[in-house]
Amino acid sequence: MSLTVGVIGGGQLARMMIPPAIELGIDIRVLAENAGESAGIAVTQLGDYRSVEDVLRFAQGVDVVTFDHEHVPQEVLRALVASGAAVHPGPDALLYAQDKLRMRERLTALGLPVPEWGAVSSIADLDVFIKAHGGRAVVKTARGGYDGKGVRVVSSGAEVADWFDDDDDPLLVEELVEFRRELSQMLARRPSGEIALWPLVESVQRGGVCVEVIAPAPGTSDRLREVAAEVATTIAAELGVTGALAVELFETTDDRLLVNELAMRPHNSGHWSIDGAATSQFEQHLRAVLDLPLGPTAAREPWSVMVNVLGGTSKNRYPAALADQPGAKYHFYGKEPRPGRKVGHVTAGGDELEEVVFRARAAAAFFED
Amino acid sequence: MSLTVGVIGGGQLARMMIPPAIELGIDIRVLAENAGESAGIAVTQLGDYRSVEDVLRFAQGVDVVTFDHEHVPQEVLRALVASGAAVHPGPDALLYAQDKLRMRERLTALGLPVPEWGAVSSIADLDVFIKAHGGRAVVKTARGGYDGKGVRVVSSGAEVADWFDDDDDPLLVEELVEFRRELSQMLARRPSGEIALWPLVESVQRGGVCVEVIAPAPGTSDRLREVAAEVATTIAAELGVTGALAVELFETTDDRLLVNELAMRPHNSGHWSIDGAATSQFEQHLRAVLDLPLGPTAAREPWSVMVNVLGGTSKNRYPAALADQPGAKYHFYGKEPRPGRKVGHVTAGGDELEEVVFRARAAAAFFED
Repeated sequence: MSLTVGVIGGGQLARMMIPPAIELGIDIRVLAENAGESAGIAVTQLGDYRSVEDVLRFAQGVDVVTFDHEHVPQEVLRALVASGAAVHPGPDALLYAQDKLRMRERLTALGLPVPEWGAVSSIADLDVFIKAHGGRAVVKTARGGYDGKGVRVVSSGAEVADWFDDDDDPLLVEELVEFRRELSQMLARRPSGEIALWPLVESVQRGGVCVEVIAPAPGTSDRLREVAAEVATTIAAELGVTGALAVELFETTDDRLLVNELAMRPHNSGHWSIDGAATSQFEQHLRAVLDLPLGPTAAREPWSVMVNVLGGTSKNRYPAALADQPGAKYHFYGKEPRPGRKVGHVTAGGDELEEVVFRARAAAAFFED
Repeated sequence: MSLTVGVIGGGQLARMMIPPAIELGIDIRVLAENAGESAGIAVTQLGDYRSVEDVLRFAQGVDVVTFDHEHVPQEVLRALVASGAAVHPGPDALLYAQDKLRMRERLTALGLPVPEWGAVSSIADLDVFIKAHGGRAVVKTARGGYDGKGVRVVSSGAEVADWFDDDDDPLLVEELVEFRRELSQMLARRPSGEIALWPLVESVQRGGVCVEVIAPAPGTSDRLREVAAEVATTIAAELGVTGALAVELFETTDDRLLVNELAMRPHNSGHWSIDGAATSQFEQHLRAVLDLPLGPTAAREPWSVMVNVLGGTSKNRYPAALADQPGAKYHFYGKEPRPGRKVGHVTAGGDELEEVVFRARAAAAFFED
């Protein structure tokens, strides 16, 4: 009954698909750019995800192709589909995770709540938007941004003059949303349509990078959870997303939910599910892209808190960390530490939120220099 | 902080160490006899575990050597230790998992409860023992038996005449214990002495092969659990066991606990812990052999039931199984199905034992032809 999943990209998301693949008896292959990447143990081909030839060769003999990242070009994706490969998520869906302008256009057309936004092609246009929105705005490159890169908060168009110089693509400009906090609604969807949602979580960002996730998001009303679930379900179904989907949301100071970003893959805001949910996002992603029935998504404990390890150390801190926090769940990605780099995460679970937050932070802190 | 664990043997126990190693950021290497074994994804050397040369070469560059099975000869183990390698469990402990006669001698010397036994070198001696124990007895080869192999229930010494022919080693003979059921007490022990015990479980055998495990064992008294824990702790400490230890026990019809077998590695009776315990036996084994502080071992749910998949099928039964039992946890070992072969297991968890048993059995049954 051998099923084979091919993952394009050798980063930590591909790495974290390997344990559930091993448990489920699913063969997993990874197309990585370099030897020694996070998913190295499963790498079966080194190659370039931008090369049609490399990607088509990789896809031979796998039942489905999926992704560690959203950077595979549309022309490569479409060549893959044309070759007869099963690709999940497919190019028509991935487009909206690759291009933030197309995403904003589509969500607006669907009537979904988004920040006020515009597509601007000149400093002058941008200044008009900024002036109309209180003198500050968020400017994003439509493509290629992640973890705070490709995003600037500006009070004048001149501050992104370099981005206009780069190419002719318009930039996305958005109102600077006054938000109380950021939330994330994750789900998985099968090609045949089944959807399973995890509990809504709170995601704490610092400098555009996720540092902590609390599952479930504390103090949410039934109504808020319903809206988040409805928004995410609509996006998944209307955009034809397959596999895991993260819908990052702003909870505004005036009690609205606005869609911030989309990720069509397992996502940092779902890492808590490895230890804290009945089915982890990595197992569920594999099930979803193989069009297998999805697993239950309920939390296994009242609270789970995930803290990223940023930067890290090359020293072995396990003896001290495990002595202090033996029950925390430690996850490292086999990456060399560099300042600010996500090298791992720690999850703690339990009945009392404050104590769980304390334990997760204490455990993670051992691994930061 | 790269730590490297080398596992001798490429079977399913080595395979199931890989997921927690990946999560913990521990490098794992496997010495396997053949390509394509269960732990194939981590195999870094093909070689013979009976060859000092192969094993010494494998041990270079790993922080600790541990095992998928107990068949590495003492002379190889001792050469490994002499080379300066950290070996857990070490040869002095492993001896008692390799040789059932030495095990019976040692446990008897420690005053631990075992069935009445003898070492017999002739059919005549064996007949004397059988006659003195009600006309039937269990005969075991001291070495090499597993899953019911090397074990026969006989009423006359002539029934194992072939075993006397084979070599001059004495056979182990034991009284045929009248037991109510079989239990297993698992623990892990670090070289520095720390011990953590999992809940006592019930192990259901058929034809000498474990088919089902219920965690915790239903209907046990505090006293029974205390005795089981004390026996296993004494064995671990007195024999100097490091890593995971399974103490298989008979609960007799007259309410005694007798030690049946020992296994010094993760064990089938602990597979439930992957999904059902705060720390799985595979993660704990890695922590223990690296002499890292151990994790909590409490059950995550009131009941966990593990059912082995024996024989199996080459067909993909996941669509039907997951549709029927989406919440069960499926584990397959990448093995070709053969009649009676353990190819995987399924674990279910929940509040009501009867229902959990039903779900685990139903899920496993999909994968048997």
